[in-house]
Amino acid sequence: MNNPIDSNAGPRLYRIPDGDDRERLTCPDCGYVAYENPRIVVGVVARASDERILLCRRAIPPRIGYWTLPAGYMELNETAEHGAMREAWEEARAQLELTGLLAIYSLARIHQVQLIYRAILTQDEVSAGPESQEVKLFHYDELPWDELAFPTVDWALKHDHQAHLSGYTKAFSNPTEDEA
Amino acid sequence: MNNPIDSNAGPRLYRIPDGDDRERLTCPDCGYVAYENPRIVVGVVARASDERILLCRRAIPPRIGYWTLPAGYMELNETAEHGAMREAWEEARAQLELTGLLAIYSLARIHQVQLIYRAILTQDEVSAGPESQEVKLFHYDELPWDELAFPTVDWALKHDHQAHLSGYTKAFSNPTEDEA
Repeated sequence: MNNPIDSNAGPRLYRIPDGDDRERLTCPDCGYVAYENPRIVVGVVARASDERILLCRRAIPPRIGYWTLPAGYMELNETAEHGAMREAWEEARAQLELTGLLAIYSLARIHQVQLIYRAILTQDEVSAGPESQEVKLFHYDELPWDELAFPTVDWALKHDHQAHLSGYTKAFSNPTEDEA
Repeated sequence: MNNPIDSNAGPRLYRIPDGDDRERLTCPDCGYVAYENPRIVVGVVARASDERILLCRRAIPPRIGYWTLPAGYMELNETAEHGAMREAWEEARAQLELTGLLAIYSLARIHQVQLIYRAILTQDEVSAGPESQEVKLFHYDELPWDELAFPTVDWALKHDHQAHLSGYTKAFSNPTEDEA
Protein backbone atom coordinates (compact mmCIF):
# COMPACT_ATOMS: atom_id res chain seq x y z
CA MET A 1 0.00 0.00 0.00
CA ASN A 2 1.10 3.56 -0.55
CA ASN A 3 1.27 6.50 1.76
CA PRO A 4 -2.43 7.32 2.25
CA ILE A 5 -2.12 10.69 3.92
CA ASP A 6 -0.61 13.82 2.43
CA SER A 7 1.12 14.97 5.57
CA ASN A 8 4.52 15.15 7.15
CA ALA A 9 3.45 14.17 10.65
CA GLY A 10 1.59 11.38 12.42
CA PRO A 11 0.80 7.86 11.19
CA ARG A 12 1.44 7.93 7.43
CA LEU A 13 3.45 4.87 6.46
CA TYR A 14 2.24 1.29 5.97
CA ARG A 15 4.73 -1.28 7.31
CA ILE A 16 4.66 -4.56 9.28
CA PRO A 17 5.40 -3.82 12.96
CA ASP A 18 7.75 -6.16 14.86
CA GLY A 19 5.91 -9.28 15.95
CA ASP A 20 2.95 -8.58 13.68
CA ASP A 21 2.03 -10.33 10.46
CA ARG A 22 0.43 -7.60 8.38
CA GLU A 23 0.92 -4.02 7.28
CA ARG A 24 -0.30 -1.31 9.67
CA LEU A 25 -0.46 2.45 9.39
CA THR A 26 2.49 3.69 11.45
CA CYS A 27 4.32 6.87 12.33
CA PRO A 28 7.93 6.69 11.09
CA ASP A 29 8.98 9.31 13.65
CA CYS A 30 7.69 7.84 16.92
CA GLY A 31 6.70 4.28 15.96
CA TYR A 32 3.02 4.73 16.87
CA VAL A 33 0.77 2.13 15.19
CA ALA A 34 -2.69 3.35 14.16
CA TYR A 35 -4.63 0.07 14.09
CA GLU A 36 -7.62 0.09 11.77
CA ASN A 37 -10.52 -2.13 12.79
CA PRO A 38 -14.08 -2.69 11.65
CA ARG A 39 -16.68 -0.31 13.03
CA ILE A 40 -19.77 -1.44 14.89
CA VAL A 41 -23.29 -0.47 13.84
CA VAL A 42 -26.02 -1.15 16.39
CA GLY A 43 -29.70 -1.30 15.43
CA VAL A 44 -33.10 -2.77 16.19
CA VAL A 45 -36.04 -4.53 14.64
CA ALA A 46 -38.75 -3.16 16.91
CA ARG A 47 -42.36 -4.32 16.91
CA ALA A 48 -45.40 -2.55 18.31
CA SER A 49 -48.03 -4.35 20.43
CA ASP A 50 -49.92 -5.26 17.21
CA GLU A 51 -46.70 -6.76 15.76
CA ARG A 52 -46.14 -3.96 13.26
CA ILE A 53 -42.46 -3.20 12.58
CA LEU A 54 -40.82 0.22 12.91
CA LEU A 55 -38.99 1.70 9.91
CA CYS A 56 -37.53 5.15 9.29
CA ARG A 57 -37.36 7.00 5.97
CA ARG A 58 -33.85 8.43 5.69
CA ALA A 59 -33.42 12.21 5.68
CA ILE A 60 -29.63 12.02 5.27
CA PRO A 61 -27.24 10.45 2.74
CA PRO A 62 -26.68 7.80 1.69
CA ARG A 63 -30.00 6.55 0.32
CA ILE A 64 -32.14 9.57 1.21
CA GLY A 65 -35.85 8.73 1.05
CA TYR A 66 -35.36 4.98 1.46
CA TRP A 67 -36.53 2.96 4.46
CA THR A 68 -34.18 1.66 7.11
CA LEU A 69 -34.13 0.26 10.62
CA PRO A 70 -33.14 2.53 13.49
CA ALA A 71 -29.37 1.95 13.49
CA GLY A 72 -26.07 3.79 13.63
CA TYR A 73 -22.48 3.70 14.76
CA MET A 74 -21.91 2.54 18.32
CA GLU A 75 -20.30 5.29 20.39
CA LEU A 76 -17.55 5.07 22.98
CA ASN A 77 -18.69 4.67 26.59
CA GLU A 78 -21.92 2.80 25.93
CA THR A 79 -22.90 -0.85 25.74
CA ALA A 80 -24.13 -2.34 22.46
CA GLU A 81 -27.63 -2.55 23.98
CA HIS A 82 -27.60 1.08 25.07
CA GLY A 83 -26.37 2.09 21.62
CA ALA A 84 -29.24 0.29 19.91
CA MET A 85 -31.76 1.97 22.24
CA ARG A 86 -30.10 5.35 21.73
CA GLU A 87 -30.39 5.04 17.95
CA ALA A 88 -34.08 4.09 18.23
CA TRP A 89 -34.67 7.23 20.26
CA GLU A 90 -32.60 9.52 18.04
CA GLU A 91 -34.11 8.37 14.74
CA ALA A 92 -37.67 7.47 15.69
CA ARG A 93 -38.30 8.81 19.22
CA ALA A 94 -39.02 5.17 20.04
CA GLN A 95 -39.00 3.79 23.55
CA LEU A 96 -38.46 0.08 23.64
CA GLU A 97 -37.30 -2.97 25.48
CA LEU A 98 -34.73 -5.24 23.86
CA THR A 99 -35.73 -8.91 23.80
CA GLY A 100 -32.53 -10.45 22.46
CA LEU A 101 -29.90 -10.32 19.76
CA LEU A 102 -31.29 -10.98 16.28
CA ALA A 103 -28.08 -11.10 14.23
CA ILE A 104 -24.48 -10.19 13.67
CA TYR A 105 -23.82 -9.20 10.07
CA SER A 106 -20.19 -8.81 8.94
CA LEU A 107 -19.80 -6.43 6.01
CA ALA A 108 -16.13 -7.00 5.34
CA ARG A 109 -15.91 -4.84 2.23
CA ILE A 110 -17.09 -1.73 4.07
CA HIS A 111 -15.33 -2.60 7.35
CA GLN A 112 -18.55 -2.81 9.31
CA VAL A 113 -20.10 -5.24 11.78
CA GLN A 114 -23.80 -4.81 12.50
CA LEU A 115 -25.29 -5.93 15.82
CA ILE A 116 -29.06 -6.03 15.36
CA TYR A 117 -31.36 -6.56 18.35
CA ARG A 118 -35.03 -7.55 18.54
CA ALA A 119 -37.23 -5.21 20.55
CA ILE A 120 -40.79 -4.41 21.51
CA LEU A 121 -42.03 -0.82 21.70
CA THR A 122 -43.05 0.08 25.21
CA GLN A 123 -45.30 2.78 23.75
CA ASP A 124 -46.72 2.86 20.24
CA GLU A 125 -46.21 6.58 19.61
CA VAL A 126 -43.13 7.19 17.47
CA SER A 127 -42.03 10.27 15.50
CA ALA A 128 -39.24 11.30 13.16
CA GLY A 129 -35.96 12.42 14.69
CA PRO A 130 -33.60 14.77 12.80
CA GLU A 131 -32.16 12.02 10.58
CA SER A 132 -35.57 10.70 9.46
CA GLN A 133 -38.10 12.20 7.01
CA GLU A 134 -40.83 9.98 8.38
CA VAL A 135 -41.25 6.97 10.65
CA LYS A 136 -43.93 4.34 10.22
CA LEU A 137 -45.12 1.00 11.58
CA PHE A 138 -45.66 -1.70 8.93
CA HIS A 139 -47.30 -5.10 9.03
CA TYR A 140 -44.82 -7.66 7.67
CA ASP A 141 -46.82 -8.22 4.45
CA GLU A 142 -46.97 -4.46 3.81
CA LEU A 143 -43.23 -3.77 4.16
CA PRO A 144 -41.73 -1.56 1.41
CA TRP A 145 -39.34 -4.24 0.09
CA ASP A 146 -38.47 -2.27 -3.05
CA GLU A 147 -37.62 0.86 -1.12
CA LEU A 148 -35.27 -0.50 1.56
CA ALA A 149 -32.06 1.49 2.01
CA PHE A 150 -29.58 -1.37 2.46
CA PRO A 151 -29.37 -5.15 1.95
CA THR A 152 -28.91 -5.72 5.69
CA VAL A 153 -32.34 -4.16 6.33
CA ASP A 154 -33.83 -6.85 4.08
CA TRP A 155 -31.82 -9.57 5.87
CA ALA A 156 -32.85 -8.36 9.33
CA LEU A 157 -36.55 -8.07 8.48
CA LYS A 158 -36.59 -11.62 7.08
CA HIS A 159 -34.57 -13.04 9.98
CA ASP A 160 -36.85 -11.31 12.49
CA HIS A 161 -39.88 -12.73 10.70
CA GLN A 162 -38.36 -16.21 10.81
CA ALA A 163 -37.58 -15.86 14.52
CA HIS A 164 -41.04 -14.43 15.18
CA LEU A 165 -42.81 -17.35 13.49
CA SER A 166 -40.60 -20.15 14.81
CA GLY A 167 -39.51 -19.00 18.24
CA TYR A 168 -35.90 -19.41 17.07
CA THR A 169 -33.62 -17.51 19.47
CA LYS A 170 -30.11 -18.17 18.13
CA ALA A 171 -28.37 -15.17 16.57
CA PHE A 172 -28.35 -15.12 12.79
CA SER A 173 -25.37 -14.10 10.67
CA ASN A 174 -24.98 -13.19 6.99
CA PRO A 175 -27.26 -15.20 4.71
CA THR A 176 -24.99 -17.85 3.14
CA GLU A 177 -25.39 -16.39 -0.34
CA ASP A 178 -23.92 -13.13 0.92
CA GLU A 179 -20.63 -14.04 2.58
CA ALA A 180 -19.72 -10.38 3.10
CA MET B 1 -11.35 17.66 26.29
CA ASN B 2 -7.94 18.98 25.40
CA ASN B 3 -5.79 18.59 22.35
CA PRO B 4 -4.64 14.96 22.63
CA ILE B 5 -1.91 14.93 20.00
CA ASP B 6 1.28 16.95 20.05
CA SER B 7 1.33 17.79 16.39
CA ASN B 8 0.63 20.61 13.99
CA ALA B 9 -1.10 18.50 11.37
CA GLY B 10 -4.01 16.10 11.04
CA PRO B 11 -6.93 15.54 13.43
CA ARG B 12 -5.95 17.26 16.68
CA LEU B 13 -8.86 19.32 17.95
CA TYR B 14 -12.01 18.15 19.76
CA ARG B 15 -15.13 20.03 18.62
CA ILE B 16 -18.79 19.23 17.81
CA PRO B 17 -19.16 18.89 14.01
CA ASP B 18 -22.20 20.46 12.31
CA GLY B 19 -25.26 18.24 12.74
CA ASP B 20 -23.60 16.13 15.42
CA ASP B 21 -24.29 16.13 19.14
CA ARG B 22 -20.91 15.32 20.67
CA GLU B 23 -17.26 16.28 20.49
CA ARG B 24 -15.17 14.55 17.82
CA LEU B 25 -11.47 14.63 17.02
CA THR B 26 -11.21 16.91 13.97
CA CYS B 27 -8.63 18.54 11.74
CA PRO B 28 -8.95 22.34 11.96
CA ASP B 29 -7.26 22.70 8.56
CA CYS B 30 -9.37 20.45 6.35
CA GLY B 31 -12.40 19.63 8.52
CA TYR B 32 -11.75 15.87 8.57
CA VAL B 33 -13.48 14.10 11.47
CA ALA B 34 -11.61 11.15 13.00
CA TYR B 35 -14.48 9.16 14.54
CA GLU B 36 -13.46 7.00 17.48
CA ASN B 37 -15.49 3.83 17.97
CA PRO B 38 -15.28 0.72 20.13
CA ARG B 39 -13.02 -2.04 18.85
CA ILE B 40 -14.20 -5.59 18.29
CA VAL B 41 -12.55 -8.59 19.91
CA VAL B 42 -13.52 -11.99 18.48
CA GLY B 43 -12.94 -15.21 20.39
CA VAL B 44 -14.11 -18.77 21.01
CA VAL B 45 -15.00 -21.21 23.72
CA ALA B 46 -13.94 -24.40 21.95
CA ARG B 47 -14.60 -27.91 23.23
CA ALA B 48 -12.90 -31.13 22.23
CA SER B 49 -14.83 -34.33 21.51
CA ASP B 50 -14.62 -35.25 25.22
CA GLU B 51 -16.08 -31.83 26.16
CA ARG B 52 -12.80 -30.44 27.49
CA ILE B 53 -12.37 -26.70 26.92
CA LEU B 54 -9.40 -25.06 25.19
CA LEU B 55 -7.44 -22.37 27.04
CA CYS B 56 -4.15 -20.61 26.23
CA ARG B 57 -1.54 -19.40 28.71
CA ARG B 58 -0.55 -15.90 27.62
CA ALA B 59 3.01 -15.29 26.42
CA ILE B 60 2.46 -11.56 25.84
CA PRO B 61 1.33 -8.62 28.00
CA PRO B 62 -1.01 -7.92 29.58
CA ARG B 63 -1.41 -10.76 32.11
CA ILE B 64 1.51 -12.92 30.96
CA GLY B 65 1.23 -16.46 32.34
CA TYR B 66 -2.54 -16.29 32.91
CA TRP B 67 -5.09 -18.37 31.05
CA THR B 68 -7.34 -16.96 28.36
CA LEU B 69 -9.62 -17.99 25.53
CA PRO B 70 -8.31 -17.76 21.98
CA ALA B 71 -9.37 -14.18 21.14
CA GLY B 72 -8.06 -10.99 19.62
CA TYR B 73 -8.91 -7.90 17.64
CA MET B 74 -11.02 -8.44 14.56
CA GLU B 75 -9.15 -7.35 11.44
CA LEU B 76 -10.39 -5.50 8.38
CA ASN B 77 -11.59 -7.65 5.47
CA GLU B 78 -12.78 -10.63 7.49
CA THR B 79 -16.11 -11.68 8.97
CA ALA B 80 -16.51 -11.98 12.74
CA GLU B 81 -16.66 -15.77 12.33
CA HIS B 82 -13.48 -15.89 10.26
CA GLY B 83 -11.75 -13.67 12.81
CA ALA B 84 -12.66 -16.02 15.67
CA MET B 85 -11.36 -19.01 13.73
CA ARG B 86 -8.19 -17.12 12.77
CA GLU B 87 -7.45 -16.32 16.42
CA ALA B 88 -7.98 -19.98 17.41
CA TRP B 89 -5.44 -20.97 14.78
CA GLU B 90 -2.92 -18.23 15.62
CA GLU B 91 -2.96 -18.78 19.38
CA ALA B 92 -3.60 -22.52 19.70
CA ARG B 93 -3.18 -24.05 16.23
CA ALA B 94 -6.77 -25.17 16.72
CA GLN B 95 -9.03 -26.21 13.90
CA LEU B 96 -12.65 -25.91 14.74
CA GLU B 97 -16.21 -25.47 13.64
CA LEU B 98 -18.28 -22.65 15.09
CA THR B 99 -21.64 -23.77 16.48
CA GLY B 100 -23.18 -20.40 17.31
CA LEU B 101 -22.69 -17.10 19.07
CA LEU B 102 -22.21 -17.45 22.81
CA ALA B 103 -22.19 -13.80 23.91
CA ILE B 104 -21.64 -10.14 23.19
CA TYR B 105 -19.83 -8.43 26.05
CA SER B 106 -19.63 -4.61 26.02
CA LEU B 107 -16.62 -3.27 27.92
CA ALA B 108 -17.46 0.40 27.72
CA ARG B 109 -14.60 1.61 29.90
CA ILE B 110 -11.98 0.10 27.63
CA HIS B 111 -13.89 0.80 24.40
CA GLN B 112 -14.19 -2.86 23.49
CA VAL B 113 -16.98 -5.18 22.35
CA GLN B 114 -16.27 -8.90 22.53
CA LEU B 115 -18.04 -11.33 20.19
CA ILE B 116 -17.51 -14.82 21.64
CA TYR B 117 -18.52 -17.90 19.66
CA ARG B 118 -19.05 -21.51 20.73
CA ALA B 119 -17.06 -24.09 18.80
CA ILE B 120 -16.09 -27.73 18.61
CA LEU B 121 -12.57 -28.79 17.73
CA THR B 122 -12.49 -30.75 14.49
CA GLN B 123 -9.25 -32.36 15.66
CA ASP B 124 -8.07 -32.69 19.24
CA GLU B 125 -4.41 -31.84 18.60
CA VAL B 126 -3.65 -28.25 19.58
CA SER B 127 -0.33 -26.47 20.20
CA ALA B 128 0.91 -23.08 21.34
CA GLY B 129 1.15 -20.32 18.74
CA PRO B 130 3.61 -17.43 19.18
CA GLU B 131 1.37 -15.53 21.63
CA SER B 132 0.86 -18.53 23.94
CA GLN B 133 3.26 -20.17 26.43
CA GLU B 134 1.13 -23.28 26.53
CA VAL B 135 -2.30 -24.49 25.44
CA LYS B 136 -4.36 -27.05 27.29
CA LEU B 137 -7.75 -28.74 27.33
CA PHE B 138 -9.58 -28.61 30.68
CA HIS B 139 -12.63 -30.37 32.01
CA TYR B 140 -15.04 -27.75 33.38
CA ASP B 141 -14.48 -28.74 37.00
CA GLU B 142 -10.70 -28.51 36.55
CA LEU B 143 -10.61 -25.02 35.04
CA PRO B 144 -7.95 -22.68 36.54
CA TRP B 145 -10.48 -20.14 37.88
CA ASP B 146 -7.88 -18.31 39.98
CA GLU B 147 -5.50 -17.89 37.08
CA LEU B 148 -7.81 -16.50 34.39
CA ALA B 149 -6.43 -13.47 32.56
CA PHE B 150 -9.60 -11.36 32.31
CA PRO B 151 -13.12 -11.19 33.81
CA THR B 152 -14.68 -11.86 30.42
CA VAL B 153 -12.93 -15.26 30.28
CA ASP B 154 -14.72 -16.14 33.52
CA TRP B 155 -18.04 -14.88 32.14
CA ALA B 156 -17.67 -16.80 28.88
CA LEU B 157 -16.70 -20.08 30.55
CA LYS B 158 -19.73 -19.87 32.87
CA HIS B 159 -22.11 -18.87 30.08
CA ASP B 160 -20.82 -21.68 27.87
CA HIS B 161 -21.32 -24.14 30.72
CA GLN B 162 -24.88 -22.88 31.24
CA ALA B 163 -25.61 -23.19 27.50
CA HIS B 164 -23.99 -26.61 27.41
CA LEU B 165 -26.11 -27.96 30.27
CA SER B 166 -29.42 -26.38 29.30
CA GLY B 167 -29.35 -26.26 25.51
CA TYR B 168 -29.90 -22.49 25.75
CA THR B 169 -29.01 -20.92 22.38
CA LYS B 170 -29.74 -17.21 22.90
CA ALA B 171 -26.68 -14.96 23.00
CA PHE B 172 -25.62 -13.84 26.46
CA SER B 173 -24.49 -10.32 27.33
CA ASN B 174 -22.68 -8.84 30.34
CA PRO B 175 -23.73 -10.44 33.63
CA THR B 176 -26.12 -7.95 35.23
CA GLU B 177 -23.75 -7.24 38.09
CA ASP B 178 -21.16 -6.05 35.58
CA GLU B 179 -22.92 -3.42 33.49
CA ALA B 180 -19.69 -2.51 31.70
